[in-house]
Amino acid sequence: MDMEGVDESFRVTPWEVEGVVDYERLVRLFGTELISDELMARLTSLAGDSNHMLRRRIFFSHRDLNLVLDDYSAGRGFYLYTGRGPSGPMHVGHIIPFYFTKWLQDRFNVNLYIQMTDDEKFLEESRGLTLEDTSRWSYENMLDIAAVGFNPDRTFIFRNTEYLGNMLPLVLKVARKINFSWVRAVFGFNEQTNIGMVFFPAIQIVPALFERRRCLIPAAIDQDPYWRIQRDIAEGLGFYKAAAIHSRFLMPLTGPTGKMSASQPESAVFLSDDPKTVRKKIWQAFSGGQPTVEQHRRLGGNPDADVAFQWLYYFFEEDDRKVEKLREDYRSGRCLSGEMKEILIEKVTSFLEEFSRRREEARDTLHLYTRDGGLAREMWERRHGLD
Amino acid sequence: MDMEGVDESFRVTPWEVEGVVDYERLVRLFGTELISDELMARLTSLAGDSNHMLRRRIFFSHRDLNLVLDDYSAGRGFYLYTGRGPSGPMHVGHIIPFYFTKWLQDRFNVNLYIQMTDDEKFLEESRGLTLEDTSRWSYENMLDIAAVGFNPDRTFIFRNTEYLGNMLPLVLKVARKINFSWVRAVFGFNEQTNIGMVFFPAIQIVPALFERRRCLIPAAIDQDPYWRIQRDIAEGLGFYKAAAIHSRFLMPLTGPTGKMSASQPESAVFLSDDPKTVRKKIWQAFSGGQPTVEQHRRLGGNPDADVAFQWLYYFFEEDDRKVEKLREDYRSGRCLSGEMKEILIEKVTSFLEEFSRRREEARDTLHLYTRDGGLAREMWERRHGLD
Repeated sequence: MDMEGVDESFRVTPWEVEGVVDYERLVRLFGTELISDELMARLTSLAGDSNHMLRRRIFFSHRDLNLVLDDYSAGRGFYLYTGRGPSGPMHVGHIIPFYFTKWLQDRFNVNLYIQMTDDEKFLEESRGLTLEDTSRWSYENMLDIAAVGFNPDRTFIFRNTEYLGNMLPLVLKVARKINFSWVRAVFGFNEQTNIGMVFFPAIQIVPALFERRRCLIPAAIDQDPYWRIQRDIAEGLGFYKAAAIHSRFLMPLTGPTGKMSASQPESAVFLSDDPKTVRKKIWQAFSGGQPTVEQHRRLGGNPDADVAFQWLYYFFEEDDRKVEKLREDYRSGRCLSGEMKEILIEKVTSFLEEFSRRREEARDTLHLYTRDGGLAREMWERRHGLD
Repeated sequence: MDMEGVDESFRVTPWEVEGVVDYERLVRLFGTELISDELMARLTSLAGDSNHMLRRRIFFSHRDLNLVLDDYSAGRGFYLYTGRGPSGPMHVGHIIPFYFTKWLQDRFNVNLYIQMTDDEKFLEESRGLTLEDTSRWSYENMLDIAAVGFNPDRTFIFRNTEYLGNMLPLVLKVARKINFSWVRAVFGFNEQTNIGMVFFPAIQIVPALFERRRCLIPAAIDQDPYWRIQRDIAEGLGFYKAAAIHSRFLMPLTGPTGKMSASQPESAVFLSDDPKTVRKKIWQAFSGGQPTVEQHRRLGGNPDADVAFQWLYYFFEEDDRKVEKLREDYRSGRCLSGEMKEILIEKVTSFLEEFSRRREEARDTLHLYTRDGGLAREMWERRHGLD
């Protein structure tokens, strides 16, 4: 196998997820660590608060999270970095990790950098996007992200096509350390890959070198290959190795294979879907139930394969007792597939209603994250890599 | 042969020139055209003036120069683009093509863009330069270039590390059209080449797409590989194919092999050399003469191998009759090697004296080329690739 994250039965790269992902196996392939009970307890204790996505190991894997907590305890601090590839509308699977990121920012009161990789989404030829497309999606997606409600004085949201000038010296220092052979092995590039894509890893790596403190990256595990390279070169450039906390993927509405995709609208609930669409999509979602009510009552359903239950477990039902009762009731046949879906529809609909209200408000506050807030103003004054 | 510009007996790439260059052969290898007498006459007639570097075919090869003249005659105009890699002090061989460029700008009253490739000089690992080094050399080299005396309202001198932000959308569009396989074939890159170097051709190509008019690039022929790629992609992006006019290299003081190099200070006269150093270097230069005066008088010298004569021919003696008389006198033995060197020393010394006076003045005028002149102001307002 010449590429990490690719197994006989599944494939996880920053550009595609295929098959049924075996997360324990992925941890071994990527060389990350599962979050132990002890580590979770320590994070929870320092945060002063528990988080259901952590308790349920939706964020399940990490690199150096223990060192991040050491740094925090010792007063050295840390910062957060994550991002979004603005290739189309965001769905709930895209936004949920940002809620976990907000939880981290609120609890630890740290800086957060959010990179919009509009350059890369243009460079990926197979998407066929123009720069006008990626520019429009950048703005729309930034509104979605701003709606999550980050600290406006400690959060900087930036588009690569706008901010690269400020990052360039550091991008060049990073690029000089990485050869074609390496990105070919890590990302599966080949001779036909365009030179923009070949160069891009340097641009995604740089925000993990924005501060001379440890950087913690909350993101889906498919982005981990970038952090592996960062970790190999960071210390040579006088920075800390990036730490990461990795999430699983939210199960697509179509079932346990692959990940949700904007090119398959029926696979996902988009943040802009109206209640009628939400109801229809969830109603049609893949179910872990039996063919008839009678059989379901008798044999019970499979919560592990039931999208509605999985979505409640992943994010939408925060209460552990309620979610475990749903699991048991479903397994025993007491709860029908339709009932599970109704519960999810109610949760998702009210989540989106609140979200869309906050998103409208974000039209007035977005500038704080991109230009005028405390951190944003600092960042536009900086040229990275010359200090 | 898997790389253009490389033959059994010589090697010409943007990074190295080895062996004795056979220029006629290079024209065939690169697929350019020799400048015919007819084409030269047409250029001279439109310019309203002749130029000794053109008459002597120091600028000897071209691509589409005839189309540039068609465009000029038809009122569509054209523009000029050239550059400098700021890796160290400039020598006379570096600055001479800028004098030819100035001649073109003055005669045709056209815009001129001068790219300082400080990014690339940092990325070339073998040079071992820091960004501080390339930044300092950029400034020093820009003063040298400004000393040539370009039109301050029609000339924009820019450093890639500063201007890339403005070029980025167009750089991405170019990068998406070029794959690794292509730059490997054209530039001889390999798996160990760093991803910054792999990406860089997109950055050098973009100024050849700054205007929706034909771009004429006066530069040494080793830069031609970049323009070949530009020519293959320009029309697909809605621009003209770049035209070029190529110079030979000025013979190193050490003799007819290779090109002058800052790493071999005895091979070149630097713009900052004092008269004593100039005298010493030229006096030690490779000579086409005989071992003794007696033999020289009897057998005559070889002007083709005599550095002093070659420098006079290349640039320093503008008068054709004088230079041809020197050639004959040298060949016949009437002119001794020492006499030829004295003539050159006087020419180079007075050139450098005048140059250094103009360079001091350029400290006050450089800002017109980089920020405040007519063209510079326009350029800082532009974002290329979004129009």
